[in-house]
Amino acid sequence: MAAQKKDFIYEGKAKQVYSTTDDNLVIIHYKDDATAGNGAKKGTIENKGVMNNKITAMLFKMLEKNGIKTHLVEVLNDRDQLCQKVKIFPLEVIVRNVIAGSMAKRVGIEEGTKPVNTIFEICYKNDAYGDPLINDHHAVALGLATYEELAEIYKTTSKINDLLKDAFDKIGITLVDFKIEFGKNSKGEILLADEITPDTCRLWDKETGKKLDKDRFRRDLGGIEEAYIEVLKRLGAE
Amino acid sequence: MAAQKKDFIYEGKAKQVYSTTDDNLVIIHYKDDATAGNGAKKGTIENKGVMNNKITAMLFKMLEKNGIKTHLVEVLNDRDQLCQKVKIFPLEVIVRNVIAGSMAKRVGIEEGTKPVNTIFEICYKNDAYGDPLINDHHAVALGLATYEELAEIYKTTSKINDLLKDAFDKIGITLVDFKIEFGKNSKGEILLADEITPDTCRLWDKETGKKLDKDRFRRDLGGIEEAYIEVLKRLGAE
Repeated sequence: MAAQKKDFIYEGKAKQVYSTTDDNLVIIHYKDDATAGNGAKKGTIENKGVMNNKITAMLFKMLEKNGIKTHLVEVLNDRDQLCQKVKIFPLEVIVRNVIAGSMAKRVGIEEGTKPVNTIFEICYKNDAYGDPLINDHHAVALGLATYEELAEIYKTTSKINDLLKDAFDKIGITLVDFKIEFGKNSKGEILLADEITPDTCRLWDKETGKKLDKDRFRRDLGGIEEAYIEVLKRLGAE
Repeated sequence: MAAQKKDFIYEGKAKQVYSTTDDNLVIIHYKDDATAGNGAKKGTIENKGVMNNKITAMLFKMLEKNGIKTHLVEVLNDRDQLCQKVKIFPLEVIVRNVIAGSMAKRVGIEEGTKPVNTIFEICYKNDAYGDPLINDHHAVALGLATYEELAEIYKTTSKINDLLKDAFDKIGITLVDFKIEFGKNSKGEILLADEITPDTCRLWDKETGKKLDKDRFRRDLGGIEEAYIEVLKRLGAE
């Protein structure tokens, strides 16, 4: 590869970002750090960075093949990805195929309920305010995105949901819900960014209902590493 | 009038509802009770019921003249309105022309900020869950309304906002925000229901910024009754 790692730019809860010698590219480094409850709970999941780097790459490549533009350029090593540099929309875009987690608590629906529709949500990425649920009007008022950008984001998110649901279904996993993020590259294209991993999805075994995701960490269920390994294995990682 | 008061049906925070001898009509009785913070704070505002009955009637009649269908049939006396019986959508429909109250706190915008857009919100009317903010997908998943009903509700709400903003502007008042409710009558028509009063609007004097609404009660600012009287007087009540 041409682009060489340059400066440390930013540290998130699960990843670090470095600039490169190419202004349009960054290197994203996957860590083992795990947090829950907006950072209230902290820990480490052994080899999570290695596994999530692999899982994200496999899923992003599958999505790219199906017409979704992503920031991923190439996997560099166990923990590093070369990605297009994007300006992230400060939005968590959430899709719910089955009710769980914060939505179950928020409005009093039992976890595991299958709604009649697919639920899309956006939250304002802002730790000080606890990443609050907002709607499109709030996002526009806050200057986070335009109505047109939001429409494109929802359209792409719906396609991503169809593709991911299908991919997980084939390996015996129900895609309960997931969170994704989008960014804009220097050409003004909106790209899928961040990651898609058991950190950011709820994944339930179709037969047993066993949780194969970060809820094992959030809810102290044990067998965390094994769950991530299981997802990676079912996805066909070598 | 033909319809006579029959049985007590329901008591809300500020009103009571009675059935009548006509199955399609109810009598709504306006009380002086005032609550804030989802019932955490309780009190009485002298003559509020009388004033809010009048204010709602004046505003609903103005809206009707401009093509908005409302539940109001006629004012019966100081505290009672004859209204079409509707099944209320369990939604608080909120419009914000200026940022204040819960939205200011929720996302950290200073009260008084004028957003670039008009902000529409829906909250799930459910005391046990604190009337949480939801979006259209949540409302559909909860069975509160269909996507089509929501589209009609937003369209009507936008018209109501234009008409109310204009009416208040003419009497030197900024319509900061307001909450309305809708219901469906026996014919399946969606009607504006509930009330539009200083209980359910934020009304600021255009010149001085003085609050002429229930925030005087919520925030212990004093001069509560006087504020309601002032709104009624400016609206041209005899």
